[in-house]
Amino acid sequence: MPQMKNRSLVSINDFSKEEILHILDLAEEFEANPNQKLLEGKVVGSLFFEPSTRTRLSFETAINRLGGRVVGFSDSASSSATKGESLKDTIQMVSRYADLIVMRHPLEGSARYASEQSLVPVINAGDGANQHPTQTMLDLYSIRKTQGKLDDLNIFLVGDLKYGRTVHSLLMALSDFNPTFHFVSPEELRMPREYKLFLEEHGIPYYEHGELSEIIDEADIIYMTRVQKERFSDPMEYERVKNAYVLKRNMLKGTKDNMRVLHPLPRVNEIHTDVDASPKAYYFDQARNGVFARMALIAAVMGLK
Amino acid sequence: MPQMKNRSLVSINDFSKEEILHILDLAEEFEANPNQKLLEGKVVGSLFFEPSTRTRLSFETAINRLGGRVVGFSDSASSSATKGESLKDTIQMVSRYADLIVMRHPLEGSARYASEQSLVPVINAGDGANQHPTQTMLDLYSIRKTQGKLDDLNIFLVGDLKYGRTVHSLLMALSDFNPTFHFVSPEELRMPREYKLFLEEHGIPYYEHGELSEIIDEADIIYMTRVQKERFSDPMEYERVKNAYVLKRNMLKGTKDNMRVLHPLPRVNEIHTDVDASPKAYYFDQARNGVFARMALIAAVMGLK
Amino acid sequence: MPQMKNRSLVSINDFSKEEILHILDLAEEFEANPNQKLLEGKVVGSLFFEPSTRTRLSFETAINRLGGRVVGFSDSASSSATKGESLKDTIQMVSRYADLIVMRHPLEGSARYASEQSLVPVINAGDGANQHPTQTMLDLYSIRKTQGKLDDLNIFLVGDLKYGRTVHSLLMALSDFNPTFHFVSPEELRMPREYKLFLEEHGIPYYEHGELSEIIDEADIIYMTRVQKERFSDPMEYERVKNAYVLKRNMLKGTKDNMRVLHPLPRVNEIHTDVDASPKAYYFDQARNGVFARMALIAAVMGLK
Repeated sequence: MPQMKNRSLVSINDFSKEEILHILDLAEEFEANPNQKLLEGKVVGSLFFEPSTRTRLSFETAINRLGGRVVGFSDSASSSATKGESLKDTIQMVSRYADLIVMRHPLEGSARYASEQSLVPVINAGDGANQHPTQTMLDLYSIRKTQGKLDDLNIFLVGDLKYGRTVHSLLMALSDFNPTFHFVSPEELRMPREYKLFLEEHGIPYYEHGELSEIIDEADIIYMTRVQKERFSDPMEYERVKNAYVLKRNMLKGTKDNMRVLHPLPRVNEIHTDVDASPKAYYFDQARNGVFARMALIAAVMGLK
Repeated sequence: MPQMKNRSLVSINDFSKEEILHILDLAEEFEANPNQKLLEGKVVGSLFFEPSTRTRLSFETAINRLGGRVVGFSDSASSSATKGESLKDTIQMVSRYADLIVMRHPLEGSARYASEQSLVPVINAGDGANQHPTQTMLDLYSIRKTQGKLDDLNIFLVGDLKYGRTVHSLLMALSDFNPTFHFVSPEELRMPREYKLFLEEHGIPYYEHGELSEIIDEADIIYMTRVQKERFSDPMEYERVKNAYVLKRNMLKGTKDNMRVLHPLPRVNEIHTDVDASPKAYYFDQARNGVFARMALIAAVMGLK
Repeated sequence: MPQMKNRSLVSINDFSKEEILHILDLAEEFEANPNQKLLEGKVVGSLFFEPSTRTRLSFETAINRLGGRVVGFSDSASSSATKGESLKDTIQMVSRYADLIVMRHPLEGSARYASEQSLVPVINAGDGANQHPTQTMLDLYSIRKTQGKLDDLNIFLVGDLKYGRTVHSLLMALSDFNPTFHFVSPEELRMPREYKLFLEEHGIPYYEHGELSEIIDEADIIYMTRVQKERFSDPMEYERVKNAYVLKRNMLKGTKDNMRVLHPLPRVNEIHTDVDASPKAYYFDQARNGVFARMALIAAVMGLK
């Protein structure tokens, strides 16, 4: 069994394939039996230097379901950062109060830095545009749970593939599992060259598409992301393309029975609400899986399993 | 015994007379024996889209006294609503994390809508000017506890009877218990015609007064509310009437021994602080009763009692 | 044993020497054995009318480690004070929900006032420039823990000695233990005359210094505080003196082996980060001691020990 105790979790790239599979197995165990008071008597610092309801509530639910207690803050306005305290000092302090730190911070690299300062493990709950490893873990869990496997899948990544950290992390994490990727995005938001080079070096096939409607009947997973207006230098261009990346119920016709639509949420309008009632809509259940994935990660770094 | 398990609590009008009495009995039981860990292992989502310290702390105290755990937010600034997420999506998400949702939202009708979207019961902690059923329940509990009964009472409602949702809900809820109502308010803030029609149809007597000092010696309950300046089209009119609706200690002379003054709080200046030391001042104990009433409601919808 | 049950803790001056030593012994006990569920089934109101991450997280960690539950708010924006509610009413309310109140408030004297209004004990977590008794208690605990005693020590207080409440409280609390004080500050921020008079009346020696580098080799404890620009009427004067009160690693040469540097935190730049790795830097461990000191104080006023 992989040794994860006392390790910080900063990037999905820190996990070996074996470790990922171990965490997914653990998550499955927690889903089957969620009331395990493994964290009783432990205090977790939940430090959100920027608001993120979904991620924070998911973590805090996981901690509470494990029997642990939460102290922390939900935005930097109520943190001592407003008094000019450095991140180093905040982490030095909280790591002397708590047994584990969960941190969301707007600055890229802040999670790695915090893990170096902390006396207790740090779980990265998102550091700017950089990493959000627990999101990737719940994405993997959702894919395996719905497809019965991680291997040999046709994965469609849709929307903002340039800036979206979730699609980049998912791409890297799936690369061990013989995937075929389809990238669907406007010209301005295409998958960066470095990721395509990575896939080429590893002999992983990928295809680029300009339209969502193309060949999605081959998809096992359609992973949607937000196309944000502010990413476009030309607002006219945004207006032109935005509707090309909205998933609607009628587009699901002809897709595989077992295909599932994922989205890291929050969604704005890139998935029409008429999709919600489809059995292929999985994004809300995907959010629920986050609780189990986070229980598994917490249990692993705390050496509770 | 009424079947309330898994029901959402949106409006006081959803409760039958029998159900109200059942909840009041339960609240009495919790007051006598508050440490019952019925909610152990359960997580409650406490979603306050607008701040409300009293209601939030009362609910969170109730949940904690029952042994449950709380996750949530105390204002919309730290919620994902700021990222443009719809209420539907927030409720879909949280109802997959938590076993119960308590929600305060500024929009009328939002609680009913949330209850339709949620996989778990929703307790309305106030939806705009519309409903605040747990406030009404604690008002009823306070009246029964101080008067020994709910029937045949002289109820004085004072202040803003036009916009005050608490007085409207209380009026509806008491209508099954043969009350006599006295409405004391400035001309601009009189009880709306629809409520008076309702009382007439049900043969319930009511009287309207322009002055607080009139005949309050007949009162069993004086229920005070805030008269807010912003409700007046003519600020001069506000200045003229505001002092007519301030309760002072000397006005309590001649009132019944068992009369009690209630107020949903927060008070600003409509009850002079010299009333606080009177044994007839009950508004702070009324707030405490809220914890027991909410424990009862939570236990009922969770099927714990 | 001193009788502290049901007493509010407003000022360090409310504690006798015997009571202080009793609390320090209790804190030691909690440090040795932190998992004592003495507060199980109890709810603590954590009312922070102004943000203070360190103090709030320290208290909330202490409460959770004792098995208690927390309800409250972390800044006044999400409190009902924004609706014009008086402090009296807020305390009347919360003291009917919770078994204990921890309060931070910007107004001097607010803690004493709250303790008079409350039905349950109030622990002052800082009332403006006035008192912050739990900080003093953790300072004393840190001094005794590192020096093996409180008596006969050379205490250097450095920085803003005029406005710093922590140094004033520490001075008063140590006066029973035969200290020698050294005050190191710019002219504008010297220890106020009233405190020097107090020391003279009690026959306690003190020395004033204009430079940090002077004779610190005699120190047992160097207690650093922030020198804030806004305290100076002449900004040029601030620029002139600010570097004279920054502690750097090379200044620790020649100091006693057992000397320790304390700071109430948050630090800005008055201790250079090159000091952090020195075994004489104690400010982060001092922060940890706050959890044990607060567990002790809570246990004492709740009559749990």
